[in-house]
Parts: sequence; C-alpha cells; structure tokens
Amino acid sequence: MSSAATGRISVPVGSLRQFVEAVFAARGMSAEHAACVTDALIWANLRGIDTHGVNRVPRYVELIDLGYMNAQPSIDVQEVAIGSLRIEADRAPGPIAMTLAMEGAIDRARIAGIGIALVRATTHTAALGYYTRHAATRGCLGIAYSASQPNMAYHGARAAGVSTSPLSISAPGGADASPIVLDIASGIVSHGRLIQARKLKQALEPGLAIDREGNPTTDPALAHVPLPMAGPKGSGLALMIELLTSVLAGNPLLAESLEGTALGKHHRQNGVCIAIDIARFIDPQVFAQEASRLACDIHALPAADSAHPPLTPGERGDRMMAVRAHSGIPLSPPVAADLRNLAQKLAIALPAELEI
Amino acid sequence: MSSAATGRISVPVGSLRQFVEAVFAARGMSAEHAACVTDALIWANLRGIDTHGVNRVPRYVELIDLGYMNAQPSIDVQEVAIGSLRIEADRAPGPIAMTLAMEGAIDRARIAGIGIALVRATTHTAALGYYTRHAATRGCLGIAYSASQPNMAYHGARAAGVSTSPLSISAPGGADASPIVLDIASGIVSHGRLIQARKLKQALEPGLAIDREGNPTTDPALAHVPLPMAGPKGSGLALMIELLTSVLAGNPLLAESLEGTALGKHHRQNGVCIAIDIARFIDPQVFAQEASRLACDIHALPAADSAHPPLTPGERGDRMMAVRAHSGIPLSPPVAADLRNLAQKLAIALPAELEI
Repeated sequence: MSSAATGRISVPVGSLRQFVEAVFAARGMSAEHAACVTDALIWANLRGIDTHGVNRVPRYVELIDLGYMNAQPSIDVQEVAIGSLRIEADRAPGPIAMTLAMEGAIDRARIAGIGIALVRATTHTAALGYYTRHAATRGCLGIAYSASQPNMAYHGARAAGVSTSPLSISAPGGADASPIVLDIASGIVSHGRLIQARKLKQALEPGLAIDREGNPTTDPALAHVPLPMAGPKGSGLALMIELLTSVLAGNPLLAESLEGTALGKHHRQNGVCIAIDIARFIDPQVFAQEASRLACDIHALPAADSAHPPLTPGERGDRMMAVRAHSGIPLSPPVAADLRNLAQKLAIALPAELEI
Repeated sequence: MSSAATGRISVPVGSLRQFVEAVFAARGMSAEHAACVTDALIWANLRGIDTHGVNRVPRYVELIDLGYMNAQPSIDVQEVAIGSLRIEADRAPGPIAMTLAMEGAIDRARIAGIGIALVRATTHTAALGYYTRHAATRGCLGIAYSASQPNMAYHGARAAGVSTSPLSISAPGGADASPIVLDIASGIVSHGRLIQARKLKQALEPGLAIDREGNPTTDPALAHVPLPMAGPKGSGLALMIELLTSVLAGNPLLAESLEGTALGKHHRQNGVCIAIDIARFIDPQVFAQEASRLACDIHALPAADSAHPPLTPGERGDRMMAVRAHSGIPLSPPVAADLRNLAQKLAIALPAELEI
C-alpha cells in the first residue's frame, strides 16, 4: 500500500513487528527483550508519535554497535526502601529498563500507596506515555520523566544547556474508559520539527529556535537548537528533571556534557517511574467515573474551531491507534530506506510492503 | 520609607508580620496557625512573588467571613498506606494544610523512600515553593501541585476549562548551597499580569489571553482569561493536576464549576505534597555537590544578555530575599490601602509605615 501524495508506505503492524524484533535479535537481544523494545517503538507509531517509533531502529542498532546500548544488560534492581527501587540498568535499551521500572513502581505502590523506581544509566527511553499508560491500566496514576544530554536552549542563554526532557502523566478512565495520557517534552518544539522544516525549506514561526551563534531565527537552514516551552518554565522544568533523575542516580548528564568531559560525549539517559495506587485513596470506580465526567465536560467546552472539539490528553493518539491497528503504520521514504539498508546489512527478510 | 517613583511603601518584615498575624488572630485563628499562614504569605513577598503575598490578606479574611475558609479547622490526617497520607483539611487555610502535608510527606519518605500527602478540601494554597523548599532544607526532593477552579482557557476552547494549576519542585544544594526552587503556573501568563495591564492600559503581547467571547486579544481592557503555557502542554498539565489531586481526593473542582453546580461556585482547592528522601538513593553530600556543580555550569553558559547571566530556578528569589529581609516589603498603594481598611475594620494597630 502506498500513498501517492506523500510517498509513504503502510506496513501491517504484525509484519513490521516481526521485522523489528528480528533486527534486535540479530544484535543479540533475547526474544523477550527484542519484543519489549519493539512494542514500545511500534506503540508510538500506532499513536502517531512517529518521532519515537521504528524510525529509531537504525539509531538503536548504531548505539549497540558503538557499545553505548547494551543488548544483553545485567540489570540490578535494589530495594532502597519499602516504597523505592534503584535500578542499575547497565546501559539497557530504555524500554527494557523503564518497563521494569514501572512494574517495580506499581509493585511498591501496592505496599506503600506510592512507589518510585529510579533508573540509572539506561539509553533512549522512547515514548514515556507507554509506561505511564500501562500504570493507568493497572489502577494507578503513572508519572515518568527522563533526562538526557543538552539539546535545548536554557532560558537567557545563547546555547543548549538542558535537554528537552519529557514528562508523562497518565490516569485511568477518560472518554470511552481509555486512560488519559499526557506526554510532553519541555521544549517549545522538537528537534524533529526543526529537521522537517529544513528538509521542506519551510520558514519557522518566531520564537521556536536559535542558530549556532545563539541568535533567534526563523530560517529553517539555520535553526539549530529549540527554545524551551514558555521560556524559563520549560528550561527550569528540564533542569529539575536532571536533578530528580541523573543527580539522584549519581550519573550526571548535563554537567559532564557542558564541561566537555569524555563521559559527556557518550549517549546516556536516566529515568524515573512513579506509581500511585488509586485504591488506597478512593474507590477506583468512583475515580474512573469522575475522570470520564471531566473528559465529557472538556469535550463540551465551546470549541475555537467548531469542526474540532477540545480533546483530552492522549485522545488524538487513541483515535490514531484505532485507525493504524487496521491500516498499518505509514513509513516515510527516508525511514523505509533506512529499514531496507538495515535488512540488507543484517540479512533479515523485509516486510513485503517494503520490498522494492 | 516611600519610593517616590512608584508610590510604594516599604514595611519592615517584623512589623508587617505582627500586623498580619493580628488580623488572622482577630478572625479566630490560633496563634500557631496565624503565624504559619503569615509566614507563607510574607515569604512570597520576600522572594518577589508579590501576587501571592500579603496582598491576599483581605481576600483570606473575606473567605473566612463567607465560610469558605475555616479559621479553626478540624484536620484529619489518615495514613492510607505506609508511604501515603490522606488529609481531610476541613477548609483549612492552604498554608496550614500544605505545611502539615509536606511534613507528613517527609515523615513518610523517611520510611518508604518516597512519601505522598493528598490534601482534600483546603483553600488558597499560596506559593507552592514555600513547601517544596522546606523539603529541600530537610534533605528531600520536594514536589507539590494544587488544583482550583477553572480560570484558564483549555487548548482549542473559547472559554476557561482548567485552572492555572501550579507545580513546584525543589532540590537541595544549588549556588551558595541554597535550594533550587522551581514554582510555575501552567498558564502562559497570570491573572495578575492581565489585571496589571488593564490598570496601566498597556497592550498585551499576542498569544497571552482571550476575551469574554473567546477571541484572542491584545487589548488590556478586553483580556479576560489567560491562555495555557505552550498550548496543549499547559492545559494538559492542568487537567492532569486536577486528576492527581481533586479526583483522587473525591473533591472534584473543574467538573462542578463547568457544570455550574452550587458547589462549583464556592472557593475550594485541593493539593498534593510529595517528598523523596535523597539519602536512600545517594550520599546527600554528593547530591549537593553535583547540584552546585550544575548550577555553576548553568551560570557559565553564554548569556543572551551579557549583563544577565542565566540563573537557576529560584535564584532571583534568593537575591530578592536577601535584599528585602533588610529593606522591608514594598507595598503598592492599592495593597497599602486595603491593609489600612482592614486595620480600621478590625481595630488593629497598623505598622507605623502604613499610618497616614
């Protein structure tokens, strides 16, 4: 299936999943780990978060080949208190470490009402909504955030000082009883958006990015670093996330990179998962009813554009997921080309739709 | 002391504190509670957060007189799990309930590594940085958020749908070993800023507010409701805060107001305090050193304006506090007039500086 307008090729979820699992298995992951990482990436595609989907597969393989991502990690889960875990991730793929972390946080929350799992030294954590939404399906409120290296301007600075650190929060029981899933980066715009504008030669809106010299720019050829969302709020949030993850885990990322140390040049991430057990505070049925009621009230607000009633966080992703589960995942020509190269390099069979 | 340029009157902290405590005592608060509420408000003034300072005193008195704020609350603290408290605040003044909540969260964190206190049915929670900074001085990471009634546009809607719900995060050990304190509302701009623009007849920047019909406006006379920070990110965060506080506490605020129920017309708030005990995860000395290191790295970033190096969250407030602790709290003419009226009404002696 190919879309004439965009050149995108739709690949059925099942065959795409099989292919990506085979790629990771070829790089040494256990079948279980390959399935977990693949599921996190394809979940993002299903929900329309194509920046965090299978487009990342070549980079994951590269990180493994460079030794920054460990395909066979020895993960050490330490219970540091009755409600708290500290996970030495041994450079595990992010979805392995973060899935384990959210499961651990949920287990701790069953005992303590709230549970936290701090993940030290993982790699790209993928779309955080994947982990928090899982908590919501288990009767918990889920919170996750993760830290990486400087790639966003710090407010008042002419250079990258913090990362576009994401924050995700999920709760059960929105419209159609589907969890409400917020997943936001702290940047006003993503790096992906800057790259897209460069490719399409589209001018950017003012206030989104600075150039290599730190000057504000709307020129897509010059835009280098995104600005934080809401100025000091976005870069302040990103800085606090570094403190809450990397500094607490004893694995600082920003300081090492800003000071240009050897360690600061490696791809590394840290993350946190928190779960709150709703049943300790209120009847979960009542919670779900009130969450649905609130979602309905949001839908009923007078719309800025009458064709598009206001949506709750994650609702657009739910709708996309219902469509793509049937129609397949559309891949852009560059992503399709990357996957073809990978198939050739690793001698793995491509999904039929990607064969030329 | 009076500033000729602004008409502001500086009042020494001690005499302002004595006056405000006397106001709250006259409305039935115990000496201990009056001191606590006063300290939270004056702390905000000391740090330059004048929107959450003693300007609120007349409103607090009004809320007590209306029966929405309870000057003599019967607060019930329930341990719902080893790491979790649920606090029935009985319409206590926000600073009473939230101070108790953060103390409780810290106590729970000493046992479980992480602790949470959910506050049901309090009133105006004042500046959240006051509570999270306290946690940071006790060797914890502090997180707080609070929910109130709709006063901010929901993304994609032409009307208020959520509140400018604030989020605060603090950590020990920034520059000069002072805690790093982030305290942000989820609006792109505060209601105070809209009111100020109206008084000064200053046009607003585009993208800050809508009018009563829901149209974007820069006219200060028409600006009615602030827009969320970063569009869907800000209103999404505010919606999640309602779920994490009000819905979890069984005291929904947004739905009642949006549906126009009788309950929805009353002033009510809910809040959450979370503490993470740093010592369970890492040597607190190492944490503080790394936090200070990071603060130095932020200061060293190339500045957009060479006269103003980038600051860490709360640093501006620290500097203001050092100044105002000596020079006193500057009060604008309308705030001074409000306090004079209150003194007359309650037959309480004014600070000498406010006497006419």
